[in-house]
Amino acid sequence: MGTRRRVVVVGGDAAGMAAAATAKRRAGDDLEIIAFERGSWTSYSACGIPYWVGGEVPSPDDLVARTPEEHRRRGIDVRMGVEVTHVDADDATVRVRDSDGVESSHGYDELILATGAEPYLPDLPGIDSAGIHTAHTLDDGQRVLDDLLESSPRHAVVVGGGYVGLEMAESFVHQGVETTLVTRSGTPMSSLDPDVGGRVHEALERDGVRVRVSSPARGFASTGGRVSAVETDDAAIPADIVVLGIGVRARSGLATAAGLEVGAGDAIVVDSRQRADPERHIWAAGDCAATHDRMSGRLVHVPLGTHANKQGVVLGRNLTGDDVEFPGVLATAITKACSTEIARTGLGEQGAADAGFDAEAVTIETTTRSGYYPGAEPMSVKLIGDRTTRRVLGAQIIGGTGAAMRIDTVAMALWSESTVDDLMFADLAYAPPFSSVWDPVQVAARALASRLVS
Amino acid sequence: MGTRRRVVVVGGDAAGMAAAATAKRRAGDDLEIIAFERGSWTSYSACGIPYWVGGEVPSPDDLVARTPEEHRRRGIDVRMGVEVTHVDADDATVRVRDSDGVESSHGYDELILATGAEPYLPDLPGIDSAGIHTAHTLDDGQRVLDDLLESSPRHAVVVGGGYVGLEMAESFVHQGVETTLVTRSGTPMSSLDPDVGGRVHEALERDGVRVRVSSPARGFASTGGRVSAVETDDAAIPADIVVLGIGVRARSGLATAAGLEVGAGDAIVVDSRQRADPERHIWAAGDCAATHDRMSGRLVHVPLGTHANKQGVVLGRNLTGDDVEFPGVLATAITKACSTEIARTGLGEQGAADAGFDAEAVTIETTTRSGYYPGAEPMSVKLIGDRTTRRVLGAQIIGGTGAAMRIDTVAMALWSESTVDDLMFADLAYAPPFSSVWDPVQVAARALASRLVS
Repeated sequence: MGTRRRVVVVGGDAAGMAAAATAKRRAGDDLEIIAFERGSWTSYSACGIPYWVGGEVPSPDDLVARTPEEHRRRGIDVRMGVEVTHVDADDATVRVRDSDGVESSHGYDELILATGAEPYLPDLPGIDSAGIHTAHTLDDGQRVLDDLLESSPRHAVVVGGGYVGLEMAESFVHQGVETTLVTRSGTPMSSLDPDVGGRVHEALERDGVRVRVSSPARGFASTGGRVSAVETDDAAIPADIVVLGIGVRARSGLATAAGLEVGAGDAIVVDSRQRADPERHIWAAGDCAATHDRMSGRLVHVPLGTHANKQGVVLGRNLTGDDVEFPGVLATAITKACSTEIARTGLGEQGAADAGFDAEAVTIETTTRSGYYPGAEPMSVKLIGDRTTRRVLGAQIIGGTGAAMRIDTVAMALWSESTVDDLMFADLAYAPPFSSVWDPVQVAARALASRLVS
Repeated sequence: MGTRRRVVVVGGDAAGMAAAATAKRRAGDDLEIIAFERGSWTSYSACGIPYWVGGEVPSPDDLVARTPEEHRRRGIDVRMGVEVTHVDADDATVRVRDSDGVESSHGYDELILATGAEPYLPDLPGIDSAGIHTAHTLDDGQRVLDDLLESSPRHAVVVGGGYVGLEMAESFVHQGVETTLVTRSGTPMSSLDPDVGGRVHEALERDGVRVRVSSPARGFASTGGRVSAVETDDAAIPADIVVLGIGVRARSGLATAAGLEVGAGDAIVVDSRQRADPERHIWAAGDCAATHDRMSGRLVHVPLGTHANKQGVVLGRNLTGDDVEFPGVLATAITKACSTEIARTGLGEQGAADAGFDAEAVTIETTTRSGYYPGAEPMSVKLIGDRTTRRVLGAQIIGGTGAAMRIDTVAMALWSESTVDDLMFADLAYAPPFSSVWDPVQVAARALASRLVS
């Protein structure tokens, strides 16, 4: 009371603004909060970009959870188009530059780094050609949409077989463009085991996406400055428009320049309270920060909106006198490639072995509803467990409508370190429109349990 | 080995046949298994009957998981149309009567009671009129369908607001019949808290079902021997066809006659291995048996196919030398009333207080997918927790497509005795087609957690 602390937030997206909003709600006038955002949007859903590009979401405004004006009404001093160029951690000051190039300095009591991640851009010949895009920000999305409209491409190529790659391929298919997905790994979705990734490959092909695996992009051919093909070892794949989705890396330049520790790629290392440097009052959260994987115990970088939001809340609470842990991640993920739902959580078969578990896996085939109920679609569950402790280690699900959200049952089982027997006998919901009498994850748990009997 | 044991199974539906199939698979020729079923079907999904009556499932054969012939091919001697009339437990013998009235006796080494449950039929004037049905067996379902076809009813009345009542009301609406649901309790679905039940009431009315609450049926008027109205305290409700769905009770007459203990209504009391009388080698499972509620610790009777199947497997394994527990239930349940999905697990607000918890509850309103994603529908989550321990105690969910299956996340949290903080921070799946960035159950957990702060 009386001593009004100043918090400076670097980055106006999910993590930074969740932290700011949480802290402001708890501390009110005791805190002055200034948030610098170099772009023109706050608190938006980057995960929604593929659906906007695909025409399922009409406007980028729909993806904005809270506008700068809404944040200001809640007492947060949001400065748009302002880039933080330097952190002087010893002097507790940031230097910033606004969109007119005017520079200024701002002191802080607490500094929140929420600088996010940026798409990885490989140093390949021709990568600067027109028609080559990323899909990381709303501005990126607008450029892809404008390009679709202006150049009416016949052939699209998506480079990268991760979530963004799959979702952008789906977007192009929705827009009626012939689409090829090229990926370095042996199957799309290298976060899945290869057997499950192989099914994703088949599903994409069924939905009209051409897939070329084990085909890293080697460069881009162009005509008149505009991309005309993606070159791989085997072939030049015609491309009137290209989206790169080959991963992101933490944007941690300010942090490293200020002497903070980075790891797991270049992500800022924080403790479980989201403190990057407690002595110098620096915090970090979201896509720029590392976290730990609860299954492997490893430091990891998992840039996802769900973690960014939760970490922001944890940070905002701890900054205002609470003591809350961000408890780590399971690497749960879910996506939809046209008509196929895909989800994973925890460790894959190889990852489990790498982490020192005595891993066993089963894959079962079943249906999303009771087999006799209209709309029942095929689905499969791969479940991984430990032979010695019988602990559930991970799951991968692929199938029709309603398949993928079942991953949360397994995620909750992993969270509480449950055994396959716990999962097999848990009282899960059953009615024919929703499930067979043994829920699909329990069919898998039952099969796995019988394999674990010594 | 060598001494071939004989197992007699009374009842050829889920629990009995799951036990028989499990035991046979494990013990092979060491076991002779004879199953007596008084009806004409084995291993069928009673839960599917409303969807068959509603025209969504074309044939009763679709509801049969395994026919008598399929069981026989697996080495189980299934005798159809044979009723067990007496158990002489001291002599280890059952007396049976076949469909021709021929009686015989059969000795056993192990006896499995899987006699199921029967619909409760109140002793009301006119209840024997033509056109009044239950919906418990496939034969019941056939009678309702035949009656629909032959009498082309204009007005249907469903008596009872539980799952069967709601689902049968939906069936009649699907068949184009004007439908009224009458229920004794103040809201439909008395297993929900009244505030959530009130929403079910509204949803039913929106979908064209007339609902009369606090209206116990007092009798049935008839014309020429056929039902013409259901009489309540307030009114006589025109009815050309009636389905009674006012609950079931365990069919435990053979058990009580043999001196076995019953409780929780008239359900057969078993230990966690499904043994009803270990000394006399009598076992029980499924809708005829009691179990315990993991949240309240109470003995309960929860006649559901999912428990029947699991108990059957537990029984079959223990009968053949394994040692496995059926770990009890959470009273998880799910249903669909036309366009509205409904689910519950664990304790309601009042039930939590009754069980001695220091209960707090929140209800949150959100959407089934990211709000901006096409097809996002409203949903609400009521979450109950304990103020002292912060343990999650129960949840009730109502909403559009994709809402209800989220109950399994909470069920898994209850199973592992997780706190609201565990649930709030668990790494659940997020992508716009599936969820908002905070999953609906985590929105509720976050709201509840903030209420539990002292």
